[in-house]
Amino acid sequence: MPIHYPNGKPYQAKAQSSREPVNYGGRGMTLEDELNQSNQYYRQTQQAVVYKKPTPLQIVKVDYPARSQAVIREAYFKTPSTTDYNGVYRGYYLDFDAKETKNKRSFPLKNFHAHQIAHLTACLAQGGICFALIRFVSLERLFIYPASDLKRCWDEAQNAGRKSIPLSEIEAHGIELHPKLQPLIPYLEGVDQLIQMKRGNHHA
Amino acid sequence: MPIHYPNGKPYQAKAQSSREPVNYGGRGMTLEDELNQSNQYYRQTQQAVVYKKPTPLQIVKVDYPARSQAVIREAYFKTPSTTDYNGVYRGYYLDFDAKETKNKRSFPLKNFHAHQIAHLTACLAQGGICFALIRFVSLERLFIYPASDLKRCWDEAQNAGRKSIPLSEIEAHGIELHPKLQPLIPYLEGVDQLIQMKRGNHHA
Repeated sequence: MPIHYPNGKPYQAKAQSSREPVNYGGRGMTLEDELNQSNQYYRQTQQAVVYKKPTPLQIVKVDYPARSQAVIREAYFKTPSTTDYNGVYRGYYLDFDAKETKNKRSFPLKNFHAHQIAHLTACLAQGGICFALIRFVSLERLFIYPASDLKRCWDEAQNAGRKSIPLSEIEAHGIELHPKLQPLIPYLEGVDQLIQMKRGNHHA
Repeated sequence: MPIHYPNGKPYQAKAQSSREPVNYGGRGMTLEDELNQSNQYYRQTQQAVVYKKPTPLQIVKVDYPARSQAVIREAYFKTPSTTDYNGVYRGYYLDFDAKETKNKRSFPLKNFHAHQIAHLTACLAQGGICFALIRFVSLERLFIYPASDLKRCWDEAQNAGRKSIPLSEIEAHGIELHPKLQPLIPYLEGVDQLIQMKRGNHHA
């Protein structure tokens, strides 16, 4: 079988970093772990149905050992076309990505890919509730940052040659979340505010 | 590194069948291929943002060759927790799975897993537009079958010891789709009807 390579760019950087747990708040859980726990809690309590999408892989070679399950022997990480999380809450479509930085004063835009911004913008146009969950690890602060603001800052940064969003901008337009025990990341509280804002805009 | 096995059941059957194109209508495309084309068309024309989720894999061993991208050397197919497709359309959350059968008179329920029915039911409870796309390959007929009816038939079949949904039931409660050139599967036309029905129920 010829060896194929994925169409997308190599995904080594993210693939590796996703296996290095970032320690914050003394809990030793990654933002992804905390979100998985929170999504599970929201599903179990029937508040929302949100999942992380599986990591997209380009499968090249699969073995089928007799009387045993298939084993993938060669595969590559692909660049995802979309964000990592989506689902449904009170009739609303939710779509978001979760990112963290060790920076203290700004959020580096290199954490996002252009196609993720385009995806969030397309979902916004369809009436979805779209945002980024942004954690400042060193500050132990976590924000829901609306996709419409992210898109505005992304475009401004492209034009101005800037490479990050100042914390003050995220403080001004984001919704700060305060970790709880259940769920660890109570992001639906922020989503409720986004829904209120959306309704307000429609009625204005 | 110790060899781990996935928590889910072995997924060999589906993994293999997904690589065997089913030939129907003379086009030699799988239902998945046709849906991918249709979703791409709907995204490009800004009518909806719907994607197939990546196949979930349990990654066990990854090589990081110097100056080259990561290569997954051992991984297993996992049983998906959800359906294959979701997205947003005119503010509505869409969630569906696509299945085909060579049967001519009924649709075998073994094509669904219990957790997929549970997932669709949970998404319905959150106000999503949820359904199965069911193709009778030999008949060249394709239906949108509402998740609420699927759930009813699933429960009835469990109680009555039946193992399939009669075609007549799907004809009675489903919406038949007629393939087009663009998109190949014009499922949003059926979704519009589901939305009408949902609104009708709310106003009744």
